[in-house]
Amino acid sequence: MSSSQEDRLLQWLRGELRKDGSDRIGDDAALLPKAETAITVDHQIAGVHFPTGLDPRVVARRLLAVNLSDLAAMGAVPRYAFLALSSPPDQNVKSFLQALLKACRQADVELAGGDLARSPVLSATLTLVGGKPPRGRWVLRSNGQPGDRLWLGGPVGQSALGRHLLATGAEFQKSRIQLPPDLASDRCLATAARQAIRRHLFPHPQIDLGLWLGRRRRAAAIDISDGLSLDLHRLCRESGVGARLDVEKLPTSRSFLDLCNQLHLKPLDLMLSGGEDYCLLFSLPASIRPPDSYGCSRIGELTRDRSIRQIEGGREGLLEARGWDHLEARS
Amino acid sequence: MSSSQEDRLLQWLRGELRKDGSDRIGDDAALLPKAETAITVDHQIAGVHFPTGLDPRVVARRLLAVNLSDLAAMGAVPRYAFLALSSPPDQNVKSFLQALLKACRQADVELAGGDLARSPVLSATLTLVGGKPPRGRWVLRSNGQPGDRLWLGGPVGQSALGRHLLATGAEFQKSRIQLPPDLASDRCLATAARQAIRRHLFPHPQIDLGLWLGRRRRAAAIDISDGLSLDLHRLCRESGVGARLDVEKLPTSRSFLDLCNQLHLKPLDLMLSGGEDYCLLFSLPASIRPPDSYGCSRIGELTRDRSIRQIEGGREGLLEARGWDHLEARS
Repeated sequence: MSSSQEDRLLQWLRGELRKDGSDRIGDDAALLPKAETAITVDHQIAGVHFPTGLDPRVVARRLLAVNLSDLAAMGAVPRYAFLALSSPPDQNVKSFLQALLKACRQADVELAGGDLARSPVLSATLTLVGGKPPRGRWVLRSNGQPGDRLWLGGPVGQSALGRHLLATGAEFQKSRIQLPPDLASDRCLATAARQAIRRHLFPHPQIDLGLWLGRRRRAAAIDISDGLSLDLHRLCRESGVGARLDVEKLPTSRSFLDLCNQLHLKPLDLMLSGGEDYCLLFSLPASIRPPDSYGCSRIGELTRDRSIRQIEGGREGLLEARGWDHLEARS
Repeated sequence: MSSSQEDRLLQWLRGELRKDGSDRIGDDAALLPKAETAITVDHQIAGVHFPTGLDPRVVARRLLAVNLSDLAAMGAVPRYAFLALSSPPDQNVKSFLQALLKACRQADVELAGGDLARSPVLSATLTLVGGKPPRGRWVLRSNGQPGDRLWLGGPVGQSALGRHLLATGAEFQKSRIQLPPDLASDRCLATAARQAIRRHLFPHPQIDLGLWLGRRRRAAAIDISDGLSLDLHRLCRESGVGARLDVEKLPTSRSFLDLCNQLHLKPLDLMLSGGEDYCLLFSLPASIRPPDSYGCSRIGELTRDRSIRQIEGGREGLLEARGWDHLEARS
């Protein structure tokens, strides 16, 4: 029998998968049944997408969440995952895989294949395959029409705030958040800081909301990964429309604003261009509104005029497309 | 309109794809039509899978070839590719993409989605989706039975020799191979060296052979990525059989042996455990043999006895599973 370290790890992994009644990783490729599919790929690299040294279990969980968010934006049912993982020898690959398997089980996703390697930095690529739900439609970025209402699936800006905190002294270790002394001493600020960091590390992909959108007559959606303004520009470009965004309708909280103030950050910058929010930005015909239980906010509308504008305090101006640029150094 | 560097690159890419009549990269996920699919993922990292500094166009071409080889081993028709690419700022992402697009066109594969990022090392993950051909069967590792003949789709060992040459002074730059003086001065050795390096950098995935196998009554196959002996162990494990490998039947050439001799390398080590050959190792019932045009060699048979043995000079011994271990430092 073969005895390579990789083969032993794969044997263990197949044992785990068989407990869930699945085993697709014994061949050169995984075979999937006949279906219409939506496929998405995302990668997370240490030092680029998350701080070097972050617990690999958190990376695993986050990687799946980020990909699930893409499927949510399509109205797809998550089905299969494929992992390409390269990690330094000192990283525990097995604990990464255990965390990924656990997160997959929770999302009803089957880990169906992958590729392992050693490399100087932890880098993980996940390909996710989603299916078309019965009686569902795909939710496309291009489905928007002038007059549609613009909605936001959750708060924006918190994740960027959490990223900032982690980059400036806060730490997440052994499932606990350690804050710098000046924040830790104020209970309200500390609670807001912990919430922002959790929001950053553990995004909540809005799968159910995506499926609900897919059952509507017409809906356009995008998941906010690179920043509300940048992703709004993308949605509008695909739909061939413009938009008017009512900045005052963006959901926010006192504690978020206080924390931004304390850290000398502009809340609106974080909300409009912070990115990594992983909630849905979507449009619906004026006659349809999402159930209150999804916690969505109406933040504007799509327009025939192709410009993308923000309204604040009764004043209207062009909304710049700013956010995370994957090919630029982050400012 | 959005003006991030990533968006501009994607706009260019979509223009290129539209020339081929395709455009699936404008949404959060790519939509694929209803089909039975085979999906495989491979990644290539600078300094791990190829020398740092290798022309990104070669990396792109090789990445596709390596993935195609997995689909070949399943008897699948290559259809869609998804790329996750992270590269240092000084690398030309566009020339990587151009080379990948060209290789995709040649293989009749559509680039359907992906993810881009900056990172300290060039790292590329490709997910490839293959379809089941009409009247074809999937070719599985587990399809082998005792008494089946064991076949090899092409020469093994050359790629490892090429890798060795690149690690010890040979260079591939501007589409030309530069050899160290002692090799360059001998015409026969130089020809063999160039051939080995080309074999290493530009593998030939055996898609047609895979499709032919899929039209047979029963065939098992694996592509040799990690070494003949290791991959033979894997095929046998999945099929629940053993094997007898006739080492003297492995295809080789005078010039390959001479070059190994010159470099003080054991040819048999390279052939049995060098890896990255990307040709098919397969089994067929005794009554079936592949057309001569595929250039296959019969190298042994599958046995009921689960041991995996090699025969050399009339002597039989256990064949160790040695080869590339993705989780070990390479010896």
